Amino acid sequence: MHSEPTTFSAESYFATQGPPPNLEHEVSAVRAFVAQQTQQNRNVVLVTSGGTTVPLELNVVRFLDNFSAGTRGATSAEYFLKAGYAVIFMHRQFSLQPFSRHYSHSTNPFLDFLEIDQTDGSEPQISVTPDKRTHLLEVLTAYKSVHASGTLLTLTFVTVNDYLWLLRAVSQELSVMRRRAMYYLAAAVSDFFLPRQKMSEHKIQSGKGSLHIEMDQVPKILKSMVDEWTHDGFIVSFKLETDPLLLIPKAHAALERYGHQVVIGNDLHRRKFEVVFVSRNAQPDGDASTGKLNEATSTFVEHWLRIDLACEPSKEIEEDIISELVRRHEEWAKKQIV
Amino acid sequence: MHSEPTTFSAESYFATQGPPPNLEHEVSAVRAFVAQQTQQNRNVVLVTSGGTTVPLELNVVRFLDNFSAGTRGATSAEYFLKAGYAVIFMHRQFSLQPFSRHYSHSTNPFLDFLEIDQTDGSEPQISVTPDKRTHLLEVLTAYKSVHASGTLLTLTFVTVNDYLWLLRAVSQELSVMRRRAMYYLAAAVSDFFLPRQKMSEHKIQSGKGSLHIEMDQVPKILKSMVDEWTHDGFIVSFKLETDPLLLIPKAHAALERYGHQVVIGNDLHRRKFEVVFVSRNAQPDGDASTGKLNEATSTFVEHWLRIDLACEPSKEIEEDIISELVRRHEEWAKKQIV
Repeated sequence: MHSEPTTFSAESYFATQGPPPNLEHEVSAVRAFVAQQTQQNRNVVLVTSGGTTVPLELNVVRFLDNFSAGTRGATSAEYFLKAGYAVIFMHRQFSLQPFSRHYSHSTNPFLDFLEIDQTDGSEPQISVTPDKRTHLLEVLTAYKSVHASGTLLTLTFVTVNDYLWLLRAVSQELSVMRRRAMYYLAAAVSDFFLPRQKMSEHKIQSGKGSLHIEMDQVPKILKSMVDEWTHDGFIVSFKLETDPLLLIPKAHAALERYGHQVVIGNDLHRRKFEVVFVSRNAQPDGDASTGKLNEATSTFVEHWLRIDLACEPSKEIEEDIISELVRRHEEWAKKQIV
Repeated sequence: MHSEPTTFSAESYFATQGPPPNLEHEVSAVRAFVAQQTQQNRNVVLVTSGGTTVPLELNVVRFLDNFSAGTRGATSAEYFLKAGYAVIFMHRQFSLQPFSRHYSHSTNPFLDFLEIDQTDGSEPQISVTPDKRTHLLEVLTAYKSVHASGTLLTLTFVTVNDYLWLLRAVSQELSVMRRRAMYYLAAAVSDFFLPRQKMSEHKIQSGKGSLHIEMDQVPKILKSMVDEWTHDGFIVSFKLETDPLLLIPKAHAALERYGHQVVIGNDLHRRKFEVVFVSRNAQPDGDASTGKLNEATSTFVEHWLRIDLACEPSKEIEEDIISELVRRHEEWAKKQIV
């Protein structure tokens, strides 16, 4: 079933797969943004959001994609802004964005709550229907205030290659903030990709029966983020599974392997009302001098967050996620060696 | 490279791949819509729009997708409505829709042109910035008028399986209109899929090196549409290629194979300003009695449509496409045996 893959380390990946054309331009924007926020004494969080595509052709028609509308990332970005963070919102093109996410064209189209007021003879005016006015005013006020204060920088990616290059570049720029920076990696990133060197130039023709695709593994860049790119930043990754039995063991494995701060685990079907924070146990209940741990104490600690949508249907679990993370990040930032 | 595929005819496809859960509900809506339009003496066009996904898991996390924001379909639907057609707009969830397409969250976010007017003491009001008012008023007027007259029915699909079942059901309902129905198949439909029987239940794990996917061919349902589902409807299909040399030959092959009315060919990079209508030559320049064709006359005829975006930057080629199709459809409908 699985034939010989090419193994890409992060290093070999960046050495062989070319950068997106607009990378330098975006890096400059990030640099200016980080400098401004540092001056204004704000913490900065990088929020990644949406899925990544894996093109199958150089002139891309077909691609492998990951399920993600970008709800988690867009919603979280709003709560980070509310908590006083400056946000670099790095999202998949056309996935949801903070503020405008409330008015999805499919579920809550804004054209539906605009009215044309035609008074005889005068020019027609556009107004908002009364039942929608309060909510729109709230969203609009937050939106205008964020734009006025310059605390939101939006960056776009499409392919997993765009994502990887942009993530590295943004992390490196943000690393000057050291422990005051947070990295909230909510994007659903493909585990597999097709190296440029293996892609066909044109649309794969379908005349030949079945389609056969073989992809290589995307390098695990979280290790490089922790060790090389971020200088002690607070790193939060996500683990989405459909098999609940895999969630905790895979979160443990990720923390062991990459050494970052938190894995937020979520089951595909329960993610709107239940997540689990998995982190390493900071104070193992044992004798540090002898190096012996109490066997009853796990190396890892799980903290479940649940909300009850039956009682509070408009509550968003991201509100609680961000509040918990802000608390943990404050603790982490205190340890900064100035 | 290519191993033995399972070959699905349209018949074997529908016999083995289950229908989407909401199909019956949507069929009822279509039936009522068609009855109403027939009564009001309107032609009806089915517009399909956006790409289709091919899930790789039953609990879907990953999928193969086709490039399509749904611009062609959403824009065309507006021009069909303008031309007096009733439109069944069958589109991929989250792809662009008629009217709201003008206000993409990424390129023209509507929150940007709303203002908060705060007069001292009074309740704040929301208004539209003056420079955007005229255009929004135009879009909004068309939108409200279409909703008031009930000439737009919107249906949603996600996977290629949803698409195929819905297309068959809608076509069969619409077939009662015979030659007064048009089928405008602008959706980018996957050529390959993974039969339900071959899918893994959970997210494919990435620990094992490379990813190996083998897909079967989606049945060519255009043949069934022409022969069985539509009863003389006017059928327009699309052919998108990145290699311009393939465009015309592939359009000819499609017309030969399926026997429908028009293939609109477009090159991926030129599709906003150039398309080609390919159809069979209605009056071959030869002696029908002897069955001998003049060898200089092709069986097919190409009609190129081009617009000059440098001169008219806001012109949309769909305006000309729909006007040409409406003309051809009128000719076609005249031949109806009453």
